[in-house]
Amino acid sequence: MAPVALAPLMGLSPQNGAVAGERPNIILFMVDDMGWQDTSHPFWREKTALNERYHTPNMERLAAQGMTFTQSYACSVSSPTRVSLMTGMNAARHRVTNWTLHKNRSNDKESANLSFPEWNWNGISQVPGIPFTYEVTALPQLLKNSGYHTIHCGKAHWGAIDTPGENPHHFGFEVNIAGHAGGGIASYHGENNYGNRTDGSPSPPQAVPGLERYWGSNTFVTEALTLEALTALDKAKKLGQPFFLYMAHYAIHIPIDRDPRFYQKYRDAGLSEKEAAYAALIEGMDKSLGDIMGWLVENGLEGNTAIIFMSDNGGFSTSTQWRDAPLHTQNAPLNSGKGSAYEGGIRVPMIVKWPDVTTPGSRCDEYLIIEDFFPTILDIAQVEERETKQPIDGVSFIPMLQGRKTSYQDRALIWHYPNRWGNEGPGIGTTSTIRKGDWKLIHYYESGKKELFNINDDIGETVNRAEDEPQRVQQLAIELGEYLRSVNAQRPSFKNGGEMLGLGRDRVNEDSNMCPWPDE
Amino acid sequence: MAPVALAPLMGLSPQNGAVAGERPNIILFMVDDMGWQDTSHPFWREKTALNERYHTPNMERLAAQGMTFTQSYACSVSSPTRVSLMTGMNAARHRVTNWTLHKNRSNDKESANLSFPEWNWNGISQVPGIPFTYEVTALPQLLKNSGYHTIHCGKAHWGAIDTPGENPHHFGFEVNIAGHAGGGIASYHGENNYGNRTDGSPSPPQAVPGLERYWGSNTFVTEALTLEALTALDKAKKLGQPFFLYMAHYAIHIPIDRDPRFYQKYRDAGLSEKEAAYAALIEGMDKSLGDIMGWLVENGLEGNTAIIFMSDNGGFSTSTQWRDAPLHTQNAPLNSGKGSAYEGGIRVPMIVKWPDVTTPGSRCDEYLIIEDFFPTILDIAQVEERETKQPIDGVSFIPMLQGRKTSYQDRALIWHYPNRWGNEGPGIGTTSTIRKGDWKLIHYYESGKKELFNINDDIGETVNRAEDEPQRVQQLAIELGEYLRSVNAQRPSFKNGGEMLGLGRDRVNEDSNMCPWPDE
Repeated sequence: MAPVALAPLMGLSPQNGAVAGERPNIILFMVDDMGWQDTSHPFWREKTALNERYHTPNMERLAAQGMTFTQSYACSVSSPTRVSLMTGMNAARHRVTNWTLHKNRSNDKESANLSFPEWNWNGISQVPGIPFTYEVTALPQLLKNSGYHTIHCGKAHWGAIDTPGENPHHFGFEVNIAGHAGGGIASYHGENNYGNRTDGSPSPPQAVPGLERYWGSNTFVTEALTLEALTALDKAKKLGQPFFLYMAHYAIHIPIDRDPRFYQKYRDAGLSEKEAAYAALIEGMDKSLGDIMGWLVENGLEGNTAIIFMSDNGGFSTSTQWRDAPLHTQNAPLNSGKGSAYEGGIRVPMIVKWPDVTTPGSRCDEYLIIEDFFPTILDIAQVEERETKQPIDGVSFIPMLQGRKTSYQDRALIWHYPNRWGNEGPGIGTTSTIRKGDWKLIHYYESGKKELFNINDDIGETVNRAEDEPQRVQQLAIELGEYLRSVNAQRPSFKNGGEMLGLGRDRVNEDSNMCPWPDE
Repeated sequence: MAPVALAPLMGLSPQNGAVAGERPNIILFMVDDMGWQDTSHPFWREKTALNERYHTPNMERLAAQGMTFTQSYACSVSSPTRVSLMTGMNAARHRVTNWTLHKNRSNDKESANLSFPEWNWNGISQVPGIPFTYEVTALPQLLKNSGYHTIHCGKAHWGAIDTPGENPHHFGFEVNIAGHAGGGIASYHGENNYGNRTDGSPSPPQAVPGLERYWGSNTFVTEALTLEALTALDKAKKLGQPFFLYMAHYAIHIPIDRDPRFYQKYRDAGLSEKEAAYAALIEGMDKSLGDIMGWLVENGLEGNTAIIFMSDNGGFSTSTQWRDAPLHTQNAPLNSGKGSAYEGGIRVPMIVKWPDVTTPGSRCDEYLIIEDFFPTILDIAQVEERETKQPIDGVSFIPMLQGRKTSYQDRALIWHYPNRWGNEGPGIGTTSTIRKGDWKLIHYYESGKKELFNINDDIGETVNRAEDEPQRVQQLAIELGEYLRSVNAQRPSFKNGGEMLGLGRDRVNEDSNMCPWPDE
């Protein structure tokens, strides 16, 4: 049980419809696979070519009303991020380190040299005894217990099919629109029934459930989810409870289907078919944000509703099936994309508008990570009863929202991926990573290689400083290794003792084929 | 907070697939408006003409495997019964004393002489601050908290439209099939989309939600709910949790639509159109019971699943729109029906099969009442954490299930209905009622009249013994009045001090027009 201090929230002056003492509504707007530059709102120190390409006027509007976070981090793939969000735990601890789908089955791609640990491939659960899960008290459960009306809309992706974790209702959500085990989407198109079969045969696992009323229509799934969310908000407004809406779009995950509402506009602007489709997916998502912001204004609730905009990992950049060559440049100036330990895989767009707290148009350059959302949202909701089955690794970023002068340079952020995604690219591998201050160390388990980058000087991670800075490497490797051992993190192991890599038995522990920790 | 003792459950020998120490699955099969005689399984000491008329082979099968309760009581209308079930409270305490539907609106029919109290017409709620509700910790919430997978299928009817109580998910149900604020049903027919409009205009409040996939088909709603429940059970079986299925049929509430699967059979047997439709509704419900029992057998779970069969009030008997004349005879040998304080309104069919506990083919003639289900089901589920916001009035009937020699003749059962239903008939009025041992006293607030019946000698409540037994009347009236005051029950009041009734001011309290308590 990890008690989390309640941040002081006194002295907030009620304005813009906020009622003193009333707990705010909270909307967490979570986009799937949205890269740091997949927006017209600049998150870097300068506006980039990608910022010019994409049109997200509602993100711009939200940023003008709230605070832009320039160094917000998620994990490099979906399930770890979403589990950290729901539980407040670092992925190294919760062990849902790769993406989940089928029960009792790993999605690690076979490796010639490495064997991967038995991670929690069934996700999280709310009850004991479910194999390969971490039993937790989830964020929406605490919100529900404290009196919030809790709404899930869109992608869940916390547990495998036919395990408790597949069902958002198991974690305290009282409304579930279209959430299930799947983390992808079979089709964005209503004309395709969002991938569902209608002949009675089983639908594919990534077919979107629960949107039957739009089947056969030309309603793009982003719009269908938005319409359903607004209906749920209409209801929520009447209930006499504050609400928590987790608006988790399937966009902009592959397949990069063409959103017909915006596609031609980007073709006319000269983009290729693939890139026009990608840009249209983004703008469709942005329209949803605008529609929800509009609903708040129309209903007089914008003054007492906190909106948090976030993505679950970096933009997709590893296949010319969906993106134009050259690959791994789609998140520039960041290197690489989804699946990578590089910034392109983990740094994501984040904006928070919390009326009377965040300063309109402000920016925060401190770093934070996805598990920090758990205590922060509980703080915003003024939840007092926080007993959880799991320990909480996240740290509330309420002081950042309040604009208090803080520095988190002494805090280390940790990523842990003892897995293999499958796609290839820079920084994509079986890695553990630490960031502290301006420095970031990546440890590759297969090769034993270490990379050191100064993120402030070299956001593109182009110059490996490991050889120049052996002491810094050692310090960070020790801190990383100690952390991983302290949370009982899992490690990959070498097939044949690493002999195929020419490592020999001396590279590994005497008694096992385990890959060494970063500091071993 | 009312701690409830956990009944001893040791010494149960695992048989028929039950696993020692494994908590049983629980199915509560709740029929709507089903009278005591609406079945071929006899609940009286002899088989009646109605038992010959109706065909419920699956109830017979369940009774052969379990225990028949001959004196099981509910309230006389739906919401009070269902709230008592969900909360463990007597209706006099929870104040949801009449049926609910619209927010902030009473369904009491206007009376010339009486004004009715501001009862909890918005039902129950799970959060504080909702006007005209009782805030509770509901039965499925405790089951969910303890690790059960909780499924609601069918009619809910715990709270008004646009209040928290309308949503089964607010009370701990993790799956909700077709449950909402409505307590009736606009249409049983898939051809009518179960009453839903498809032109975009709002559907009537009693249209059944959530069964869109059957719209336009010839699937009778009883069958649609069963199919959906079986799908939910297929899923539940995979999750690794015990399950609680609340299978709450809309059948056999009015309108008495014709179930085409069974209707002609009863016409051929000589029943009128109305009575054939009524009999067919019953058999359709019974088929659902059989399908669920069959699913348990097919899935090897019948040995570790408790089934409780129950109805929420007596059979409908007050209008020739739906039943053949003569009225008020439809629950014979019981007098009257739904809405009445007489046995016809409150005594209902009940069967429990709990493998290795209930003796096959046994009968229990002790009386019990709906709020007793709350602690009993928690006992069956071995729930240890039972902290509730509300006090618990119900008493566990585990000893009855175990066939231990018990007697509840010293316990008083209480009904309280400070309302006006609208339909007329014997025992239908603004009443409070007490049963203790063989005796039952009914107090009518409008007239001040008291009726005393010996239920054992006179199950049809034909002979009012009040004049013969003044001392017994006084004793029961005192116990009834003291109980009602102890739970802060509500009373109606006289319009114009009761002068229109010729009562004069001396009939009532000096300071108000409140109707006197039964013992005043």
